[in-house]
Order: sequence, then C-alpha cells, then structure tokens
Amino acid sequence: MAGRRVQRNNEHDVNGLNKRPFMIGVAGGTSSGKSSVCAKIVEQLDQHLIDNRQRRVNVIGQDSFYKVLNEEEKKKAFKGQFNFDHPDAFDYGLMKQIMEDIKNGKSVKVPIYDFKTHSRKPEGFTVIYPGDVIIVEGILVFYYPEIRRMFNMKLFVDTDPDTRLSRRVLRDINDRGRDLEQILVQYTQFVKPAFEEFCLPTKKYADVIIPRGVENTVAIGLIVQHIRDISNGGLKTRMMNGDAAPERDQSLNSSRPH
Amino acid sequence: MAGRRVQRNNEHDVNGLNKRPFMIGVAGGTSSGKSSVCAKIVEQLDQHLIDNRQRRVNVIGQDSFYKVLNEEEKKKAFKGQFNFDHPDAFDYGLMKQIMEDIKNGKSVKVPIYDFKTHSRKPEGFTVIYPGDVIIVEGILVFYYPEIRRMFNMKLFVDTDPDTRLSRRVLRDINDRGRDLEQILVQYTQFVKPAFEEFCLPTKKYADVIIPRGVENTVAIGLIVQHIRDISNGGLKTRMMNGDAAPERDQSLNSSRPH
Amino acid sequence: MAGRRVQRNNEHDVNGLNKRPFMIGVAGGTSSGKSSVCAKIVEQLDQHLIDNRQRRVNVIGQDSFYKVLNEEEKKKAFKGQFNFDHPDAFDYGLMKQIMEDIKNGKSVKVPIYDFKTHSRKPEGFTVIYPGDVIIVEGILVFYYPEIRRMFNMKLFVDTDPDTRLSRRVLRDINDRGRDLEQILVQYTQFVKPAFEEFCLPTKKYADVIIPRGVENTVAIGLIVQHIRDISNGGLKTRMMNGDAAPERDQSLNSSRPH
Amino acid sequence: MAGRRVQRNNEHDVNGLNKRPFMIGVAGGTSSGKSSVCAKIVEQLDQHLIDNRQRRVNVIGQDSFYKVLNEEEKKKAFKGQFNFDHPDAFDYGLMKQIMEDIKNGKSVKVPIYDFKTHSRKPEGFTVIYPGDVIIVEGILVFYYPEIRRMFNMKLFVDTDPDTRLSRRVLRDINDRGRDLEQILVQYTQFVKPAFEEFCLPTKKYADVIIPRGVENTVAIGLIVQHIRDISNGGLKTRMMNGDAAPERDQSLNSSRPH
Repeated sequence: MAGRRVQRNNEHDVNGLNKRPFMIGVAGGTSSGKSSVCAKIVEQLDQHLIDNRQRRVNVIGQDSFYKVLNEEEKKKAFKGQFNFDHPDAFDYGLMKQIMEDIKNGKSVKVPIYDFKTHSRKPEGFTVIYPGDVIIVEGILVFYYPEIRRMFNMKLFVDTDPDTRLSRRVLRDINDRGRDLEQILVQYTQFVKPAFEEFCLPTKKYADVIIPRGVENTVAIGLIVQHIRDISNGGLKTRMMNGDAAPERDQSLNSSRPH
Repeated sequence: MAGRRVQRNNEHDVNGLNKRPFMIGVAGGTSSGKSSVCAKIVEQLDQHLIDNRQRRVNVIGQDSFYKVLNEEEKKKAFKGQFNFDHPDAFDYGLMKQIMEDIKNGKSVKVPIYDFKTHSRKPEGFTVIYPGDVIIVEGILVFYYPEIRRMFNMKLFVDTDPDTRLSRRVLRDINDRGRDLEQILVQYTQFVKPAFEEFCLPTKKYADVIIPRGVENTVAIGLIVQHIRDISNGGLKTRMMNGDAAPERDQSLNSSRPH
Repeated sequence: MAGRRVQRNNEHDVNGLNKRPFMIGVAGGTSSGKSSVCAKIVEQLDQHLIDNRQRRVNVIGQDSFYKVLNEEEKKKAFKGQFNFDHPDAFDYGLMKQIMEDIKNGKSVKVPIYDFKTHSRKPEGFTVIYPGDVIIVEGILVFYYPEIRRMFNMKLFVDTDPDTRLSRRVLRDINDRGRDLEQILVQYTQFVKPAFEEFCLPTKKYADVIIPRGVENTVAIGLIVQHIRDISNGGLKTRMMNGDAAPERDQSLNSSRPH
Repeated sequence: MAGRRVQRNNEHDVNGLNKRPFMIGVAGGTSSGKSSVCAKIVEQLDQHLIDNRQRRVNVIGQDSFYKVLNEEEKKKAFKGQFNFDHPDAFDYGLMKQIMEDIKNGKSVKVPIYDFKTHSRKPEGFTVIYPGDVIIVEGILVFYYPEIRRMFNMKLFVDTDPDTRLSRRVLRDINDRGRDLEQILVQYTQFVKPAFEEFCLPTKKYADVIIPRGVENTVAIGLIVQHIRDISNGGLKTRMMNGDAAPERDQSLNSSRPH
C-alpha cells in the first residue's frame, strides 16, 4: 500500500520526463509558527545541508509573491499604513503560475521580495526544483480556490492569537527594530482584521491542524516521517550514506529541461 | 412595572433600616476593559463628582482583595514569578464577608492594596456605602459560586485575547514602567493559562456579554440607563438640581449603624 | 440625560409629522431564540394585547422578506434543496426600502410570507406603524451594511450550535411535521454553512450579546426596561389605564410634553 | 533517523521479553468520529482481518472501563438520568492499571461492558496483546494526567458540536432505537455540559488535531502511514503475504531483523 502511494507521487507526465511533487500547504496566522515548522521539517530531513538542485524537499513562502509596490503604496508601507495581510497584497497570477508549473514537475524561478524596498530584488530569484515534496507556506495559501486545490495535504498551524501577537511583538522589535506602538497599531488595524476575514475561515479546509507551532515536536515528527515515506529511496539512501546520493540527483537533473 | 422593580431594590431588612443594593458583577480577562467600563458608568451617572458617602453607585475592584504576600511570595512577585491570576491569590474569605455585608445594606471597609509592597496600605481603607447599586469587577468575580450568586446582574466584558494583550503591554510599559520581555513572559506563563482555566469558563454564567469594552458606548449606555432606573428618584433629582440631593443622603446615612 | 435620549428618539422630520423610531436589530443563528426573545419583550411591555395601530413597539421578522420563489425554486424548496439561509434568498431591495421608510417615521406594509407556497400571501400584508421602537430580527439583519447602519442598537442572541440544532429539530418535527433525516440533511447542507459564512461573522457588529436566548430573563429585562425608557410616557400611561389608548396617532403624540 | 525511532518503539524491558508498544491516544467529543477513525486505521492496515493475537495494532475503547452500576444507578441509567459523560462514570483505577501493563508490554484482559445491563459481561473479556501500536480512544482519555502521560502521540478528533449532535441523534435513533426527545434531553443535561467541562479543556494537550472525523482521509492516511513505519517489517511482510502471520509471539519477533 505504501508502494501505491509512492507511485502516485512519482507519476510522470505525458513526456515521461517530469515527476510531479507531493504538494503540502501550510497556512496559519502571523507568527503562528508556519515557517519555523517548515524550517524544522527541512532540518530534520537534512535538506538544509544540501544544494538547492539536489533537495528532495523544498519550501516556498507566500511572502515571495508580494506585489511590487508603487511609490504611493511604498509611502504607505513605510508609515505602517499598507495592508500586507490582505489578499490584494499578493501577486496571485504569478503565484498560481509558478505553483502550476512546479506541480507539473517544472523547475521555477521564485522572486525574492525585499521588505526594505518593497520590490523584488533585482539581482535574481530562487530556482526551485520540484523534487519529491513542495511545501508552500503563508497566511493565505488556502484562500484562493485554484491554489488550494493543488495541495495533496493541507496543514493549518493553529496558535492562539495572543501567543501569536506576543511572538510577533518580540520578533518585530528584536529583528526588525520597529517601535512597539507602531507594531501594535499595525496589528490592530490590519493584521488582526485580515486574519479574521481571510485566513481563519480557511482553517476549515485543513486536513490536519497542528497546534502551537514549532514546539510541537510530535506533529512535526509525523510530517517528517510522512515526507520521508513519500520521498522513499532518495532520502533514506542519502541518510544512510550520511551525504547526498549523487547518482539519483544527477539523473533527476538531467531529465529536466533546464 | 418599573415601580415594582424599584421596590424590589428598595427592600428593607427586618430592622427596617438597611436598603439592599442591586449587585452587578463585571468579569472579563485582563485588560478586557472591565474597570474602564465601570469608570465610564460611574462617570455617566455623575457619581465621580460626588462624595463617597453620597454615591448611589459604587464600584469595588476584586484587586482590593489580593492577599498580603509573605516575604517569599514578595520575592517571587518582584521577579514576576507570582501568579496574580490564580484564585489562590485572592483573600476569598474577606471578599465574601464584605460582599455579604454590603448586600445586606451595611457599609463596608474595603482594603487598599499596594502593588508596590504587595500588602494592604496601612493608612487605611475605602469605606463603601451600599447606595442603590454596587458594581463588583474583577477577573474572577464569577468564579466563586457563593459570590456569583450574590449578583442581580452578571456582565462579561468580552474582548479578544490579542486585543487584550496589546492593551496590557502598552499599559504595563507606559504606566508601570515594566520591561517588554518580562511582561510577555508573565503573560504567557501565568495570565493566559489562568484566564483559560479560571476566568473564561465563567463566561457561561453571564447574563449579558459586552463585546470590546469601553469603546462600546451603546452597551454602556444600556447599563447606565438601567442603573438610573434602579436608582430612580435619587439620581434623577440630583441631576435635575445639578448637584447632590441633600435630604435623601442625610436620611440614608443616619439610618446606618456606622 | 434621560430626557436628551428620549428627545433624540422623538425627532421629527421636515414636515414636523413623523417621529423616528428607535431601531433595534436582533441577529443570531437559527433557533438561537431571536424571535422568542422579541416576543418576550413585546409581552413584557403588554404590546401583544394592543391593536396594531396603537403599539409603541413593533417587531419585523426578516422572514417576511423572503423572495417569492419561481417554479423551479419551489421544486427545490419542497425537496429541502433550496438554501433559505443564504443572503440571496431575501428580497434585499424591499427590505431596505421598508426599513428606510419606517426609520423615517412612515408606516409600512410588510408582506406576509407563506412557507407552504413559498410566495407572499395574496390576501395582504401587515401594516406596521413606526411607534417608538422597531425591532427587526433575523439571521442576516447585520449582513447588509446599509441595513446594519440603520440600527440604534444591535443585539446578537448567542446560543451554542448544538443547542440550536436541538431546538430546531424539535420545532421542525413537532410544529412542521418534517422528517428527522431531512431536517438534519438540510441543516448540514445549507443552514450550518450559511450560518458560518454569513451570520456568525456579523456578531462582531453587535453592541450587546445575549447568551442562551429566551431563558435569559435578566438580559431581556434589561432591554425591556430600556425600551420602556425610550417610550417614556406612552407605555406607562397605557399600562396605568390597563387598556389600549384610543386613536394613537393623535392622542399619543399630543399627550407628550415634547 | 527512521531507524532510531523504530528502535525506541521496540525497546525491551529488563527481562528482555516485552516490547513496549507505541501508545496513541484519541480523544474528542461524543460522535466526533473517534472510534470510526480508529476503525478506519485498523482497516487500512488490514488488522481487522487478523486474529487478535496476531494484530500489530490494537484499539482499546474507554467505554470498556465504565463502572459496573449498582441498582440505584441502573434505575437512573434506564431513565436517561445517569451521567455517562462524567469522569466518575469510569473505573479509573482499572483503566490505569491495564494501560500501565500494556505499555510495559504485557497482554491485558479488557472487560466488555454491556450497555443493556450496565455491568461487565460475565462471560469474558477481550485479551489485548501489546503489538506495535496501542490506540486508546475515548472522550476522556486525556483527562487523567497519569494516563495522558502514557501516550506517545495524542490526537484530538475535532468535529463541530452541531455536527456531532446530528450524528448522535441519527445513531441513537437508528441503532439504539431511542426516543428523540429523550436523546436531546440527555444530550443537553449531561453530554454537552460534561464535554465542555471535562473533554474540551483537554484539547490543548493534543499533538495533532484531526478535523471532521472519519471523512478526513488525508489525516487518517497520515496516521496509517506513521503506524506502518513504526510497525516496520511486521506489517509489510504480512501484507506482502496477503495473510496473517502464524503464531505471533514467536514468529513475529523472530522474524524481525532487530
């Protein structure tokens, strides 16, 4: 039965070239722990030690798809008056295109968003190879029906609102050097209402709800093990060898049109 | 019909001396807006301008009944390691006695708690006269069954946890000069779990839920008008005259044994 | 202050003729107790004993504004396949027009919906006179922004979903002779999802939340007393006389000191 | 890494005899789908086709530990007046003893409760062999701290209260031939308050929350795959053979490479 599942995830397209990755969506409110959970998964699978091209498991953050702001919007953003939590803040078309491509086994170029300039970094983008598993995380990844339907598994990281605010305050002050009062005003004015209107109602689409976030080692272990099963030979071999298995990754790369 | 209700609130005890006040309980989580709501009610009834003895509406805060801490507990408190949100932090016996007395129309001496020394202020207490309405506000005023049953009306100020944390952080930093990280640790370690275990489950006892807190002018207006009705002649007269009606308060005071 | 409020509710329009009633909205899920609460209020104010034209307090149910179904929709409805809990099921235009009229002090003709034929009863409508207070109750009365804004006070009757389902099952079986399985299918398929998508999110607009419904005598008493205050002289006089005051539009207005 | 985990679950006690099973707790309200989820897991692992002694995955229902009622309690029970949802209804001592034994790798005798006589069936009990995985499901399996701590993984099946009531009504009417009104009275009087007081507060202990119940095939698939990994060689071998392995305690252990 395990074999059957793996086979499904190893489907090839009409050209017999592209493997379709298993798509996992990870949604949740701000500071719920979405990206920490994803980082932990990647780490437990030793994927963070591996070169981009070789990775069997890749994470795409929805933040990459923030729209490039025009001058007026930038002014708003600098004053904390731009709503980054609203669906309109994201470049839905680009996100959908990139996700469709990767779901079809193509490698994709994901823009790198620069929160200082509120535009995409000119020097480049991240190339993501489909690998075995693609994890897409963000506050609104279950909001758009066409994107939602692409996921084979939907996780919702469910952390209490006050815990999330507490984390966000600390992060924004320590990492981003922001002013407490401004953080709280922005949270109250934009983050909280958008969460309640756009993110929370998508919790009902989740297959699995992960309470608390990154400290929930049991749930993370469960997902890690599942990915390991999906990835099958690839990850296990690599782990036995203690390093990346060269043969497999070569072949995979060569079969790709890019 | 209004007459009947008022009469019930003007009941006299066997000695024909004491009027039993209408008891309103106001519960809610930390920074939900309980005491602001109470202050607004008092203000809209012009009771804040009136001498203690003359007030028809009085507010008692549960904070007044915090236990006097011993040396060890004080040390904990100074380090933010004492749980002020647990039922054990309150002097239940004293609170119950004082509430029974005032419910029976007696005036009471409510201790003044000093948060700097974590003991009662030695120089005195607040004398509260029953008046027409006694409002008792605090996180756990519906927790103790015997106290809960004393209330004629139970209000729960229901404010979202993240909104409450946001308010508390600002208040603790601005008014109390505390350190952000310590505030958040204390909130996570004590305030939040105690709210969920002891306060939130008492919401089910509420007769009326007031969302949002002090900004909810419609709900506050409703309660104010109700108190005005209960207080009947007293408040109206005073308001027409623009000052406290002397006759009534004299008689009330003279009828009291203290 | 009481005087000021009453005056506001006795505003006259440009013709000096129409009094603008105080508008109370009452929302809540199916079987939350909305209409029972309204009936109790009317009863405690003795308005149910009074002729339509004389009533100072009138209730309009949103159900009156159900659209007349066409043949295809009727077929669906008879099979329990029509979604009566969706905003589209209501004639929003008519509801808005009637509410604007009554808010402006005009008397209105409210259609009578016949749930057997799923159309309006041909023989007539209910004439509602604005009186002092108009209560509008229904699952979606806070859903439409323009209607929501008409209310001076917004109440949400908040009853747990399982309690509501329990009540609905009993009511539908006993009063409407429906089949249990069909009731549950309809609830699961239409009532519950529509509640969660359209009704529950409007709870945030409420000024006062009334838990449990009609058994909550304290909350109902609070609203009743408030209406009595708004209605001022009118209701009291009538009650003293023990019978309906004659010829309302003249006598009532003339009997008021303002 | 997978190897490490499996090894942990294959620990032997001091005598080198008993394997300690991986313990999964499954909690949730009445009719949330706990036992259906467990049945589905067992079915997907083909364990339902296998003789008791050979099973690598066993399910124990908390219902097995209902106390034997005395005459007075039985009378109450027959009138729907006994609270089967309260922690006191369970034989905590026996449940704990049996769970400790099985956790230590001992086989146990689980009583069979007879809901007709409200006592244990005199003719016997179910012998449960520890196998690789023990699933314990029930409304209060996370309520008792000492039992809660025995679980390696804690799942909470989270189904909306109205959905649960809907399922329960249908089940009780169809399967148990009960009267609708009695079902609803019992639900309102006992089931619902006990859920809110004793079961719901244990949701915070869950590692993974499974929304909706048995229809959630993705979540069930995730757990199934995890159990398969834990069970390792055992389950796979058996499935390849397509039939039950003979004489478990010997063959199974000896057939393992570790």
